[in-house]
Amino acid sequence: MNNPPDFNNIKQAAKRIERYIHRTPVYKSDNLNGLVNAEVFFKCENFQKAGAFKSRGAINAVFSLSKKEIEKGVCTHSSGNHAAALSRAAALRKTIAYIVMPENSSKVKIAAVKNYGGKISFCEPNLASRESTLKDIKQKTGATEIHPYNDYRIIAGQATAAKELFEDIDQLDIIIAPVGGGGLLSGTALATHYISSGTKVIAVEPAGADDAYRSFYQNKFIPSVNPQTIADGLLTSLGTLTFPIIKKHVDVILTVSEKSILEAMKLIWERMKIIIEPSSAVPFAAILENKSYFLSKRVGIIVSGGNVDLNKIPWINS
Amino acid sequence: MNNPPDFNNIKQAAKRIERYIHRTPVYKSDNLNGLVNAEVFFKCENFQKAGAFKSRGAINAVFSLSKKEIEKGVCTHSSGNHAAALSRAAALRKTIAYIVMPENSSKVKIAAVKNYGGKISFCEPNLASRESTLKDIKQKTGATEIHPYNDYRIIAGQATAAKELFEDIDQLDIIIAPVGGGGLLSGTALATHYISSGTKVIAVEPAGADDAYRSFYQNKFIPSVNPQTIADGLLTSLGTLTFPIIKKHVDVILTVSEKSILEAMKLIWERMKIIIEPSSAVPFAAILENKSYFLSKRVGIIVSGGNVDLNKIPWINS
Repeated sequence: MNNPPDFNNIKQAAKRIERYIHRTPVYKSDNLNGLVNAEVFFKCENFQKAGAFKSRGAINAVFSLSKKEIEKGVCTHSSGNHAAALSRAAALRKTIAYIVMPENSSKVKIAAVKNYGGKISFCEPNLASRESTLKDIKQKTGATEIHPYNDYRIIAGQATAAKELFEDIDQLDIIIAPVGGGGLLSGTALATHYISSGTKVIAVEPAGADDAYRSFYQNKFIPSVNPQTIADGLLTSLGTLTFPIIKKHVDVILTVSEKSILEAMKLIWERMKIIIEPSSAVPFAAILENKSYFLSKRVGIIVSGGNVDLNKIPWINS
Repeated sequence: MNNPPDFNNIKQAAKRIERYIHRTPVYKSDNLNGLVNAEVFFKCENFQKAGAFKSRGAINAVFSLSKKEIEKGVCTHSSGNHAAALSRAAALRKTIAYIVMPENSSKVKIAAVKNYGGKISFCEPNLASRESTLKDIKQKTGATEIHPYNDYRIIAGQATAAKELFEDIDQLDIIIAPVGGGGLLSGTALATHYISSGTKVIAVEPAGADDAYRSFYQNKFIPSVNPQTIADGLLTSLGTLTFPIIKKHVDVILTVSEKSILEAMKLIWERMKIIIEPSSAVPFAAILENKSYFLSKRVGIIVSGGNVDLNKIPWINS
């Protein structure tokens, strides 16, 4: 794919991945709706295979490869959910995923990759080491790189979450996705454009990692420098492929405080009895911070994932 | 109701409560199934209104009362989920729930009762104070007592969870419920008897609170004395109405260690991304402790509730 996914690409992705992923449920909570005076629909990708929406893109990308390509395996650098999702996708196509992870990655994330049979190469926790390690692997193995978000096949895969949400819930006034590298957000924005163009697309970012916010409003690519947030899935900078889609199809980007992210996360755990990771609390945090904006609206939220180290609950340990 | 619920009573209860409760989803986890080599179906009452199956019995009991009875309100003693569920049920019938709670009850539970408009009277944390406080309230107000489990209307209500599970999942070899006072268990056993008599009914109890286990196998009522378990919903003794039903319709009672309860609870949080309370982990703990017994079986579990104090995660704080 050399162009941003069109509607057909997204429909093909949905078809390609459906055997390998869950069609996740959409939940709502009368309790939380009462709290914010809006009708909020949570698309629960925390229940997705490997615990995050990342399985959609990873499966779509890996199953788009030719037999010849797949023989040599796939590779990526990721310390997070994409690493586990790609490992799982590779295992399903009976090939190897080579994963470059910083040596200080959490045990839980290392275990998840190993659990799906991913082959880990540790690197120093900096960009130079990560890139040189990945380059070495590509040269030695001939594996195809599957970038976590800067890849149209990944974007088309991530778009299927919003597609399903629109199939299940109609007349959404607003759809919200968190933004890190922008794979989920650009997919969500494209799906909304094709399926429900009257729905406003809002992205939310932690104030401590606001490269998308600044890039969007200053209309130029501004990478993250030393971002600080509990929402560890949103530390990455936008990509060269995701940013143009976001500029074109996202209506608003909001930022939220760490305090609101924690409050939203705890509220969702407590009232909805579901486990979501900090990054997934970011959209609801935006509603908490901007209640009058969302008043009486029908709002869809893509809950990105549920992978949390349960020994480090942020409101207890931090 | 002066006799144990027959199938018609359970069907009537289902009809009576359906407007006021959730038909909760049934979840399974490939990951956990792989771990225990069985097919386990979780009936997720943690997603129930007020966070527990207790809403079923409370609604059934309160909506069974006559207009005249309901005018004077309802009352109970409970420090747990029944207190919140009864408060909610009373509010729906626009009457008052008088709740006797020990003065050392957790803030979370006190807040839940207040949230639903229950009127709390605190007592000392012992049986004598609890009973005298409740007696005073009954005399002063004329409120109808709704016991947490020793009441056929409550039992008929709790039976509707298993009824729904059998409607959604067929050919279960085994159904498991935790046992405290026995309301959920006796309802589950009756529903199984009427709907799926080929399904074996297994009750599970913490080894540190094993009055049902001992009563069942010694064939006489042996109350709890100083029970100790993290599964705070299972501290109570069997009732005079629940024990005979359990004797007649439960096949096996197993006990599990605290270690297994914690392991099961953490596994379910981690792999299924759902929040369940310690008492709800007890059935899966029994599978973990008895894998060969459950090997290749289709097993239904009633997940009793999801009310946890999120500031006190047991594997972090204990």
